[in-house]
Amino acid sequence: MTTINSELKSFSTDAFHNGEFIKVSDQDVRGKWAVFFFYPADFTFVCPTELEDMADHYATFQDLGVEIYAVSTDKHFTHKAWHDTSPAIGKIRYVMLGDPTGAISRNFGVLVEDAGVANRGTFLIDPQGRVQYMEITAEGVGRTAESLIDKIKAAQYIAAHPGEVCPAKWKEDGATLTPSLDLIGKI
Amino acid sequence: MTTINSELKSFSTDAFHNGEFIKVSDQDVRGKWAVFFFYPADFTFVCPTELEDMADHYATFQDLGVEIYAVSTDKHFTHKAWHDTSPAIGKIRYVMLGDPTGAISRNFGVLVEDAGVANRGTFLIDPQGRVQYMEITAEGVGRTAESLIDKIKAAQYIAAHPGEVCPAKWKEDGATLTPSLDLIGKI
Amino acid sequence: MTTINSELKSFSTDAFHNGEFIKVSDQDVRGKWAVFFFYPADFTFVCPTELEDMADHYATFQDLGVEIYAVSTDKHFTHKAWHDTSPAIGKIRYVMLGDPTGAISRNFGVLVEDAGVANRGTFLIDPQGRVQYMEITAEGVGRTAESLIDKIKAAQYIAAHPGEVCPAKWKEDGATLTPSLDLIGKI
Amino acid sequence: MTTINSELKSFSTDAFHNGEFIKVSDQDVRGKWAVFFFYPADFTFVCPTELEDMADHYATFQDLGVEIYAVSTDKHFTHKAWHDTSPAIGKIRYVMLGDPTGAISRNFGVLVEDAGVANRGTFLIDPQGRVQYMEITAEGVGRTAESLIDKIKAAQYIAAHPGEVCPAKWKEDGATLTPSLDLIGKI
Amino acid sequence: MTTINSELKSFSTDAFHNGEFIKVSDQDVRGKWAVFFFYPADFTFVCPTELEDMADHYATFQDLGVEIYAVSTDKHFTHKAWHDTSPAIGKIRYVMLGDPTGAISRNFGVLVEDAGVANRGTFLIDPQGRVQYMEITAEGVGRTAESLIDKIKAAQYIAAHPGEVCPAKWKEDGATLTPSLDLIGKI
Amino acid sequence: MTTINSELKSFSTDAFHNGEFIKVSDQDVRGKWAVFFFYPADFTFVCPTELEDMADHYATFQDLGVEIYAVSTDKHFTHKAWHDTSPAIGKIRYVMLGDPTGAISRNFGVLVEDAGVANRGTFLIDPQGRVQYMEITAEGVGRTAESLIDKIKAAQYIAAHPGEVCPAKWKEDGATLTPSLDLIGKI
Amino acid sequence: MTTINSELKSFSTDAFHNGEFIKVSDQDVRGKWAVFFFYPADFTFVCPTELEDMADHYATFQDLGVEIYAVSTDKHFTHKAWHDTSPAIGKIRYVMLGDPTGAISRNFGVLVEDAGVANRGTFLIDPQGRVQYMEITAEGVGRTAESLIDKIKAAQYIAAHPGEVCPAKWKEDGATLTPSLDLIGKI
Amino acid sequence: MTTINSELKSFSTDAFHNGEFIKVSDQDVRGKWAVFFFYPADFTFVCPTELEDMADHYATFQDLGVEIYAVSTDKHFTHKAWHDTSPAIGKIRYVMLGDPTGAISRNFGVLVEDAGVANRGTFLIDPQGRVQYMEITAEGVGRTAESLIDKIKAAQYIAAHPGEVCPAKWKEDGATLTPSLDLIGKI
Amino acid sequence: MTTINSELKSFSTDAFHNGEFIKVSDQDVRGKWAVFFFYPADFTFVCPTELEDMADHYATFQDLGVEIYAVSTDKHFTHKAWHDTSPAIGKIRYVMLGDPTGAISRNFGVLVEDAGVANRGTFLIDPQGRVQYMEITAEGVGRTAESLIDKIKAAQYIAAHPGEVCPAKWKEDGATLTPSLDLIGKI
Amino acid sequence: MTTINSELKSFSTDAFHNGEFIKVSDQDVRGKWAVFFFYPADFTFVCPTELEDMADHYATFQDLGVEIYAVSTDKHFTHKAWHDTSPAIGKIRYVMLGDPTGAISRNFGVLVEDAGVANRGTFLIDPQGRVQYMEITAEGVGRTAESLIDKIKAAQYIAAHPGEVCPAKWKEDGATLTPSLDLIGKI
Repeated sequence: MTTINSELKSFSTDAFHNGEFIKVSDQDVRGKWAVFFFYPADFTFVCPTELEDMADHYATFQDLGVEIYAVSTDKHFTHKAWHDTSPAIGKIRYVMLGDPTGAISRNFGVLVEDAGVANRGTFLIDPQGRVQYMEITAEGVGRTAESLIDKIKAAQYIAAHPGEVCPAKWKEDGATLTPSLDLIGKI
Repeated sequence: MTTINSELKSFSTDAFHNGEFIKVSDQDVRGKWAVFFFYPADFTFVCPTELEDMADHYATFQDLGVEIYAVSTDKHFTHKAWHDTSPAIGKIRYVMLGDPTGAISRNFGVLVEDAGVANRGTFLIDPQGRVQYMEITAEGVGRTAESLIDKIKAAQYIAAHPGEVCPAKWKEDGATLTPSLDLIGKI
Repeated sequence: MTTINSELKSFSTDAFHNGEFIKVSDQDVRGKWAVFFFYPADFTFVCPTELEDMADHYATFQDLGVEIYAVSTDKHFTHKAWHDTSPAIGKIRYVMLGDPTGAISRNFGVLVEDAGVANRGTFLIDPQGRVQYMEITAEGVGRTAESLIDKIKAAQYIAAHPGEVCPAKWKEDGATLTPSLDLIGKI
Repeated sequence: MTTINSELKSFSTDAFHNGEFIKVSDQDVRGKWAVFFFYPADFTFVCPTELEDMADHYATFQDLGVEIYAVSTDKHFTHKAWHDTSPAIGKIRYVMLGDPTGAISRNFGVLVEDAGVANRGTFLIDPQGRVQYMEITAEGVGRTAESLIDKIKAAQYIAAHPGEVCPAKWKEDGATLTPSLDLIGKI
Repeated sequence: MTTINSELKSFSTDAFHNGEFIKVSDQDVRGKWAVFFFYPADFTFVCPTELEDMADHYATFQDLGVEIYAVSTDKHFTHKAWHDTSPAIGKIRYVMLGDPTGAISRNFGVLVEDAGVANRGTFLIDPQGRVQYMEITAEGVGRTAESLIDKIKAAQYIAAHPGEVCPAKWKEDGATLTPSLDLIGKI
Repeated sequence: MTTINSELKSFSTDAFHNGEFIKVSDQDVRGKWAVFFFYPADFTFVCPTELEDMADHYATFQDLGVEIYAVSTDKHFTHKAWHDTSPAIGKIRYVMLGDPTGAISRNFGVLVEDAGVANRGTFLIDPQGRVQYMEITAEGVGRTAESLIDKIKAAQYIAAHPGEVCPAKWKEDGATLTPSLDLIGKI
Repeated sequence: MTTINSELKSFSTDAFHNGEFIKVSDQDVRGKWAVFFFYPADFTFVCPTELEDMADHYATFQDLGVEIYAVSTDKHFTHKAWHDTSPAIGKIRYVMLGDPTGAISRNFGVLVEDAGVANRGTFLIDPQGRVQYMEITAEGVGRTAESLIDKIKAAQYIAAHPGEVCPAKWKEDGATLTPSLDLIGKI
Repeated sequence: MTTINSELKSFSTDAFHNGEFIKVSDQDVRGKWAVFFFYPADFTFVCPTELEDMADHYATFQDLGVEIYAVSTDKHFTHKAWHDTSPAIGKIRYVMLGDPTGAISRNFGVLVEDAGVANRGTFLIDPQGRVQYMEITAEGVGRTAESLIDKIKAAQYIAAHPGEVCPAKWKEDGATLTPSLDLIGKI
Repeated sequence: MTTINSELKSFSTDAFHNGEFIKVSDQDVRGKWAVFFFYPADFTFVCPTELEDMADHYATFQDLGVEIYAVSTDKHFTHKAWHDTSPAIGKIRYVMLGDPTGAISRNFGVLVEDAGVANRGTFLIDPQGRVQYMEITAEGVGRTAESLIDKIKAAQYIAAHPGEVCPAKWKEDGATLTPSLDLIGKI
Repeated sequence: MTTINSELKSFSTDAFHNGEFIKVSDQDVRGKWAVFFFYPADFTFVCPTELEDMADHYATFQDLGVEIYAVSTDKHFTHKAWHDTSPAIGKIRYVMLGDPTGAISRNFGVLVEDAGVANRGTFLIDPQGRVQYMEITAEGVGRTAESLIDKIKAAQYIAAHPGEVCPAKWKEDGATLTPSLDLIGKI
């Protein structure tokens, strides 16, 4: 299963993006920050609000150099149909991956094998293809784009400033800590 | 590995709690909501601020009927020594589990085998012993008690109101959705 | 793999039927004649004309005591959405099974494992749950409801008249043959 | 077992063709369209009418560039004897393969192991040796050469016109569809 | 493989006997002397003269209380057709077993697996189902009913007269030997 | 086990021949026709008459270019002793192989493992080392050199005249058949 | 393999004894002292002198209550023939076991597998079936009955007088030693 | 286990010889005749008389070109101590091998595994390292150097005179036999 | 291998004790404190001084209720001989176990397999049969009885006073520590 | 498990040494004498007095060219914290290895797997990385630096003076023994 620091596995699938059907593979993902945003099924209830929330913050993600990949075990045909009919989903400008074999969901450890659907898992991948943050919620509990953005900023800050760490509740521009031997047992 | 809806595995270990050494097992955990809060090591840097943040919100957790179990692969002797010497850790009133064999960390899938330390994983367990929320951050990125409290409230609301779901960005007292066939493709 | 005379395997899944979401299992299928009509994906091209052709002849199937089960690896949510938006699919009054795990398609041997879709397979099941006719076409070649109806009539005639057989090109009310030792080498 | 798109396996056997005993192997089959027409046994009842029906349409098959290979687990000696004595079988000008080891029938998945006979399976093979259509009927239900010819025409049309597909009930010269993104959900 | 004193294995098959199709199993064979007379194929060359030779001596076999079972890997339908068309085979009044699965031939060790035909093996079975004589000839060398009758008479004589043995070239009513210690080294 | 067309396996053993002890191996056997004539034991009852019968016809075997190898699980010392003391065995001019390990008898499938003796098996080997005829009789039933000579003549005729076959009861100078397609079903 | 104190294994075989063929099993051997006297082959050179030497001392063996079992891989028929023709062997009044399967020789570890003969092994068995003395000589070196008798007397003395031991070169009526702690290092 | 004609296995051990500790390996043994003389334990009762008997005849063994290797599972230190204190053992001038691991005793098949001691086995090894004579006696029965010398002389005579054999009771200068075919059954 | 707290394994062996040969098993050892004192070999150099040192303090061991078991892979015969001849060993009044199979030494993990000797290991066993102290020295480094006595006193004190522990350098009547939570980090 | 003469296995870990965090591997250990001094846990009771005792003698160890490596399954962070807060531990100038994975403790065979702590094991390693002395005490029994120093001196003396050995109770400058054959049984 995917865990922190594990590496993105290879995949290749059909996707819907900006009115087109495209092929997406792990090679396309690497090289920049990426979020894999799994959800159970198209044409269901919690999901569209989560996906709409992500769509509403897409400009911010892009400013941070992050691409969003929404993934369900539906096919790209279904993604297009949903995009055509749902006002919330119609806002989406990021990539919607079809995963009808469940291969990508299984790689990330979020496939519910006996139901053929993915759990609500969010995975932040750095440009080297390694997981830097992951969050999975039970069915019925939605996720929040703003919290995710905070985690992305912290992870990017750490990546850019080796030797510093972000304490709890850190937000952008907040103070960070530089670990040293003298701090042991003092905080 | 632990994933959403997986069940708490059996364990028994020594812990430090309110100035005493006690034994804690999975049987003690079941029956109320619980958070397992893993961190790499006592006497390190990011960790104390995370643990202090959790300590500062402990009253809220208690109001929600949630017990907190901090876990590292250190021994309970070390937890006591850290509690004695660190002002931040000295605030802690919740349970600090020693996991020197790494058994609990391994059960939750957060043990880094070749380093003997746990990743920063947070797991919300319901009274039936099932995981309802999980979040793991990379080394150097802290967690936030407030975000966790939001997730707990949502999970508790869902548990109390079968048939309703919380859309994205839901906060306590926010509107929820009741799924019905007519909503399909309409949101 | 399913072949002639093999028996229907157990399954249980969600389906869309006449505006409702229902559960369908192999126990519901047994006891009357049934056709499993597999197709690759909702919202695609050849498929809707095949499904519409089946819908147009549904009264005939019902007169013959045959239920139709259309199956793809899409979910029942998607079946409903397609039924809502497509004029051709909107005609359907028979059962549309969701098979997101691919379990039913795999049982019948028509799942293309690396694509997560079913081949275009048609299987006639008798009331005892045994396959009496099967036909699979390559991608891009449609099936014909009328040919299927001819096969159903022949199979039902044989089932009702033990000891008679239908020669080639037999149609309802055509002459049948009663095998006897004297016919050997004479036809 | 043989399924759509699976490839012809190697074989070599004795056959009866136009009054001669010849050797036939998979290498002889490749390079043009072919139909493998399995039946249970020489000197039986339904079979000769099916084989006669195929013989009556042999000119059409030849016009379409299709060779016919009738196969049973009888030997080529028996095929000749049947051809000599049966008026219906005497019409046959296509190849009759002997399969006394059952190897070819087993390769196509139609051998009934405990009876030593083949099921009534029809397999259309394209010049590359891949199955493009398959149909299997229960004992007692005959097949129809005309239906088979329709399927051959559709498969050949698709092979010749990449990018077009034949909807249900398609017959030669009928309209075909060219799939495009805009058709999704519109048919 | 069948060898001297090995026991008849169980089987059940369709046979042609005196214008009828009958079922024959090993249980029908036991209780009297029997000859299993294997040959490669119906409608071939050496075989009919061997089978005719056996037919010509059938009265003698019956007088000795011996049933004859001719066996090839052809089906009972083919046996009937051959019986109908061949003057030599038409004389046969003994049982012709169909062995299309090769199971009986394989039990006796005479099945040529890669050709699906039996070698020319003759096996004499006593009423207890044990092999008392066996002879196998290469393709192209016929067998002789009279020699077989001599062997049957010797075997039956031994079975009826425990303690006596038949020396070489023994024929019915010829002298036999009663073994005793004094004969050792004297003959 | 040895069956028709199986090949002579390698062996090397001590033998008694014309008053000498010699070594005989499979290499000595190949290149001309040979008969392996197995019998249970030296100094027993049926055996000497069989071996004497073979000795009496040895000139004929030699005229046909056939060497005789008598084989028992006795040693060559015992063969010589028997030859010295028994008038019947004293006539023998052919090779008597010792097989105290039972290796040759086991290779031909005639070793009775729990008794350490060979069954009465006769095997005709052609110059290429392949079995062309085999016959095994139960204990107490002797074999006949004349019948064996008939089989040898037929086998040699077939070997010399490819394309002809010997029908049943064939004797030297009798008519043979040349198979052709027209004969099928006519004999 | 048989070694000192190992137990006689079960066997049953045909033997020649005093002009009769008898059955001998391990049960017949137990209850009195016995010598198993293996030799390579009947009708050979060293062996008869050894066997004659044993025959010449048979009265002494009988006085000591010891039965002699000579064993070779020859059959009992051969033993009788040898007994009839050889003056030396003709003297034998003890039991000659046939071991054509080599089972007894193999049990005692003296079978030369690739030659089918026994080594020259002598084994003294006490009434409880346990080996008390064993001696094996290379091909070409004979054994001596008198030496064997000395060993038997010593073994019987030890068996009758627990607590005493026979020093080297001990002969009947010679002095024996009674072990005691005081003798250690003093002899 | 060691048996006649088996080959000396490799070993290397510490030994006591003429007041010195030396290393002895199988390479030192090869090239001349040798006797391995196993006994249970130093400082015990029967053993010293046996070893003294061997010591008393050591000049004869040397005249025959034979080296003696006494072996027990004691260590070379113990051999020296015994040699120092026991008058009988003090006579020894041959090699005393220590075998504390039991490896040499195990190689010769005389190690009693659950007691850690060797049986009283004597093995004559020829210069090629092959066993030519072996004798094992039960606990409490001593061996005789003179008998051993007789066997050595016979074995050396055979080795020097290929083609002759020593009959039973043979002593040096006694008559030997030259085997020939004519002697069979005559002795 | 034996480690702290591992339990004494079962054994039974011959021993030398106070001029007698006795049997000793693990059952005899249990019930009181015991020391297993392994050494490489009787009649060697370092060992006797170690064993003499133990003998000189035997009265003290007895006062502490401790039995001493000296163990080498020599036999009890050798122990007696050494005791008879060595002034140092002659002082010994404790038990000397023979371990010629190496079984006891292997159980304690001190057997050097390829040399057949034990390492210099000392093991203190409590009355429940559990190891409370162990020490192993390299070849050439002797052990000291006085140090061992100190360890025994400490172990016995701990066993008698649950809840107290002996700090480093503790000697009898020295101060001990009673662990309590308040001492953590204070010493 | 580690035993006398076994070799140091490879490892690499974080350590605390003189106020710094350093990396230590087996390569750093080799080349000089070393002591691995295992103890159960930081911030516990017996341990600090043992470690303090070692610290008090560190000058002596250094004079002997011996480095000390204290090892527990705690992390180097904890070692530093303990060093900062405990007066006894604060004296330490030798290396404190963190072994949070238990890998080093497991290599030496002192890891208590189900508790995640090490037993109190002391191992002396020579410059070639081989164990020359080992001692393990039960929980609650402390070790003594002075005894260890004695063992180190003896081991170093032996290493420097091949051919001499140290008898029991040997201390620096005491008499040693030079083994010779004449000493056997004399001490």
